[in-house]
Amino acid sequence: MKLGMIGLGKMGFNLVLNLLDHQHEVVVYDVNQEPRQELAGKGAIPSSSIEELVGLLPAPRVIWLMVPAGETVDQIIDVLTPLLSPGDILIEGGNSNYKDSIARADRLRKHGIHFLDVGTSGGMEGARHGACLMIGGDKEVFEKVEPIFRDISVEKGYLYAGKSGSGHFLKMVHNGIEYGMMQAIAEGFEVLHKSPFDFNYEEVARVWANGSVIRGWLMELTERAFAKDPRLESIRGVMHSSGEGKWTVENALDFQVPTPVIALSLMMRYRSLEEDTFHGKVVAALRNEFGGHAVEKK
Amino acid sequence: MKLGMIGLGKMGFNLVLNLLDHQHEVVVYDVNQEPRQELAGKGAIPSSSIEELVGLLPAPRVIWLMVPAGETVDQIIDVLTPLLSPGDILIEGGNSNYKDSIARADRLRKHGIHFLDVGTSGGMEGARHGACLMIGGDKEVFEKVEPIFRDISVEKGYLYAGKSGSGHFLKMVHNGIEYGMMQAIAEGFEVLHKSPFDFNYEEVARVWANGSVIRGWLMELTERAFAKDPRLESIRGVMHSSGEGKWTVENALDFQVPTPVIALSLMMRYRSLEEDTFHGKVVAALRNEFGGHAVEKK
Amino acid sequence: MKLGMIGLGKMGFNLVLNLLDHQHEVVVYDVNQEPRQELAGKGAIPSSSIEELVGLLPAPRVIWLMVPAGETVDQIIDVLTPLLSPGDILIEGGNSNYKDSIARADRLRKHGIHFLDVGTSGGMEGARHGACLMIGGDKEVFEKVEPIFRDISVEKGYLYAGKSGSGHFLKMVHNGIEYGMMQAIAEGFEVLHKSPFDFNYEEVARVWANGSVIRGWLMELTERAFAKDPRLESIRGVMHSSGEGKWTVENALDFQVPTPVIALSLMMRYRSLEEDTFHGKVVAALRNEFGGHAVEKK
Amino acid sequence: MKLGMIGLGKMGFNLVLNLLDHQHEVVVYDVNQEPRQELAGKGAIPSSSIEELVGLLPAPRVIWLMVPAGETVDQIIDVLTPLLSPGDILIEGGNSNYKDSIARADRLRKHGIHFLDVGTSGGMEGARHGACLMIGGDKEVFEKVEPIFRDISVEKGYLYAGKSGSGHFLKMVHNGIEYGMMQAIAEGFEVLHKSPFDFNYEEVARVWANGSVIRGWLMELTERAFAKDPRLESIRGVMHSSGEGKWTVENALDFQVPTPVIALSLMMRYRSLEEDTFHGKVVAALRNEFGGHAVEKK
Repeated sequence: MKLGMIGLGKMGFNLVLNLLDHQHEVVVYDVNQEPRQELAGKGAIPSSSIEELVGLLPAPRVIWLMVPAGETVDQIIDVLTPLLSPGDILIEGGNSNYKDSIARADRLRKHGIHFLDVGTSGGMEGARHGACLMIGGDKEVFEKVEPIFRDISVEKGYLYAGKSGSGHFLKMVHNGIEYGMMQAIAEGFEVLHKSPFDFNYEEVARVWANGSVIRGWLMELTERAFAKDPRLESIRGVMHSSGEGKWTVENALDFQVPTPVIALSLMMRYRSLEEDTFHGKVVAALRNEFGGHAVEKK
Repeated sequence: MKLGMIGLGKMGFNLVLNLLDHQHEVVVYDVNQEPRQELAGKGAIPSSSIEELVGLLPAPRVIWLMVPAGETVDQIIDVLTPLLSPGDILIEGGNSNYKDSIARADRLRKHGIHFLDVGTSGGMEGARHGACLMIGGDKEVFEKVEPIFRDISVEKGYLYAGKSGSGHFLKMVHNGIEYGMMQAIAEGFEVLHKSPFDFNYEEVARVWANGSVIRGWLMELTERAFAKDPRLESIRGVMHSSGEGKWTVENALDFQVPTPVIALSLMMRYRSLEEDTFHGKVVAALRNEFGGHAVEKK
Repeated sequence: MKLGMIGLGKMGFNLVLNLLDHQHEVVVYDVNQEPRQELAGKGAIPSSSIEELVGLLPAPRVIWLMVPAGETVDQIIDVLTPLLSPGDILIEGGNSNYKDSIARADRLRKHGIHFLDVGTSGGMEGARHGACLMIGGDKEVFEKVEPIFRDISVEKGYLYAGKSGSGHFLKMVHNGIEYGMMQAIAEGFEVLHKSPFDFNYEEVARVWANGSVIRGWLMELTERAFAKDPRLESIRGVMHSSGEGKWTVENALDFQVPTPVIALSLMMRYRSLEEDTFHGKVVAALRNEFGGHAVEKK
Repeated sequence: MKLGMIGLGKMGFNLVLNLLDHQHEVVVYDVNQEPRQELAGKGAIPSSSIEELVGLLPAPRVIWLMVPAGETVDQIIDVLTPLLSPGDILIEGGNSNYKDSIARADRLRKHGIHFLDVGTSGGMEGARHGACLMIGGDKEVFEKVEPIFRDISVEKGYLYAGKSGSGHFLKMVHNGIEYGMMQAIAEGFEVLHKSPFDFNYEEVARVWANGSVIRGWLMELTERAFAKDPRLESIRGVMHSSGEGKWTVENALDFQVPTPVIALSLMMRYRSLEEDTFHGKVVAALRNEFGGHAVEKK
């Protein structure tokens, strides 16, 4: 198929290469010229504006958006809307909040434009060689572009999830689970680290990645990380987060679902952003007040 | 090699079949006659007592213990000790507490008997077709029986972990991580379950098992479980535990390692064993006392 | 002073009695006739409509709203706004979300009407005999009605907290702390309950309420609850919640503040609303898949 | 009564003053000469050795031990045992593990020596002016020395808790609750600290200490701490712990009681002891592996 890709960052860039591998024609656009040119050298059709990109696509147009979640998505949709025609299909593959996706689908529906919200997992490697895709929107629309999803995902690696929002909802929960799994692995290695044994963490990750109950891609990545830096001495344990773990917890609270593990994974990330904590000061001060326990002075 | 296997439960039985596949000669014993006879029919050498099993093995003997962790292990070691000779090798593959394993290695060392503590992961399938093994004890002893470990594990699926106790320590932490991962997955599915969407959980687990960041064996098993019972309506959410998650938390406390995710995974299991809770009654009663909020009567 | 009270539920009713004790004149209104009449018998001035209540107050009017948080507050404000004059003061004493209070203050400011958001703590007893009040809004407005706050609160029991929203923000966090404290007390008593000792919980609560580090009103209420039902056998451990604990956690997530204790207190409440859990089913099913562990059938 | 006090640290010293206030005769001993002399100047009878202290007491002797929990207690009991006679009463008022107290009571019983385990709460102020005491041991023994407990505790502030160990068990759980309460308060203040409002924390603590649901001694101490240092800028948020919170969690795990709040309070203390964390490094490294997210270099 011929389709457009707007947004050529880490993920979008790799998705284009992946699409080209599968004989799709891809018209590409990004605010930065560099990735456009680089992809042109690999067979993509560059465009220097969204208008040009739209003009280069046959009707009904298929355009994949792969830009940072949030306002940027809405800004581009605002630009695109008057340029598109009824029947065109907009695929939004970023880490958007599913509530935004529902609103966007509603907004575009009024213009006759179809909208699919696609949660994309598998990291940069997946984007390049076989992703995992969770797709929300109208089923007939999904079916029209299913060949694209089939081609760029691993086998069994794409799913029509349901109505608008369901794709990004699944991706949100996927990331919530990911937070919990990563924190579980990380806690385990810290227990090893403080134990009286002298483990080789790369070897431990390797054996756990092969045949154990906890084997999986995250454990393979753990092995890879330790292969590069056996005790992770070069990096700091600061755990940033984008937004999907937080949204998972917020939705869990709305649904009254207890999610202690996902919530705590998120909170330990927030804790890691603090050098010192105000709650720690309060507890230390209280211990001093009632028990005369020494406080550590700054 | 020729070796003995004591304990022919789910795991030991499968390990024997696995060993037989790889042309090892296995003398088997269990308190129950049935699995002995069944394995005899598949090429194992049955024995009707521990004494007979020991007598059927050439020196230096290699005996694998695969019995329930705890007192049973010590009872069998007490029976075995006088029957064995210096240089014999005892492999203990159960889910034993690593502190017990250190004590057992010390105890047997006085008799010249070698002891290897082996954490065995991969479930029944792994035991049958390729396990994941974490091995603690003297390295020279490990090397003498390394061919056994190599044959019955998946590729890269066995590790000499270090001194006595390190094998079972690794398995303990592995299970701690497993608790956290399982709870993370389970929380995610409960969020799906209470969401406004109508997901097919088997399909969700399948797509997450293929290409996603959270892919791995646990996700494949999740798919399998939903394939059998699409909404798990036939079972109760009671989460039992053996002991390794608890030991992981206890050791984390001893090492002053914060392990919120593993600890909460364990505590949610304990919570699932309670129909009603005393802490819930106290909170409900307090809300009634200060705010006049209604309590639910029994 | 002469003021109006709209909302004569548990809290509003007691506040009126408290105001009457301190020689304030109170015009009262509630959709239900009964509490209006009952309070009329105790010295309050009943009114049969909001219009009548407004008409009975001298300018600048002071009206205290004590109705359920949420839409009801906005509905009454909508009714009141055209009836009030610039310079009138509206005091909102419910458990409102502080963001709503900020919006309401802004909305009323356009009409020249002053708005104070008042977090009210101390339960029904406090409302009756001496409350704890956290007040947000313009300081000059606060000062005009400060005598009211002084009279109906315990000594040192009222605080001008800052700009609009700060009163309800403080109350929100107060309730978050309350959730954590209650859960801590409740967990402690469950540990006692499952211990090998045979404690008399009323006596334990009494001794902890007298001289201990954890003494305070909640412990006194714990003693009272056990005095009525020594082992809380008549009630179920279902822990409902209004909204302030949830808001505290949501705000903590927005501010990236780790609040594990408040979050878990809330999640254990949600857990108590479930008879059986979907997450429990998933974990049980997974244990069965990999380890052959028995599941409990429904 | 006439009794001996061994251990004149912060707590023991204050208890002696408290006893003297109530006309008890107290023979005092400590390895340090200074507090002995200081107390002699206030009416206590100093002794320069445990032997001398024992010799100065009439039979049946009553001796209160107030020394650091752990080995020191056993060492002093070993010194005391041959010096004491059947019928003598040893009161152990430290923060001992209740299992040790059970063992000590058993050990001393063989010599005919009575043992009471006394959990002492209320901090240094309580020790000086009115403590909270939880007492385990034989009831008849308790009754013999009840006047002592009555005199040095606040009204209703002592409890015969039950058989040996129950006093220290109650104190352990008391401290577990204390951890949870303190963390709840501390989290609340951190939410205030990161909020868009500009609160005066001393004033907030004061209003919450007067009339609110969460009023109590800990909130009064919070007010006191903020009075000394309005934003706690002089101290670090390092939260040390003795052992009772940890024991509470360990016992909860043994009894299969979920105690998320107490456990997390403890784990946040451990987290505060770490400058950087190994679990944080693992998560950061994993995020980099799959998503190319930047890690912070050391």
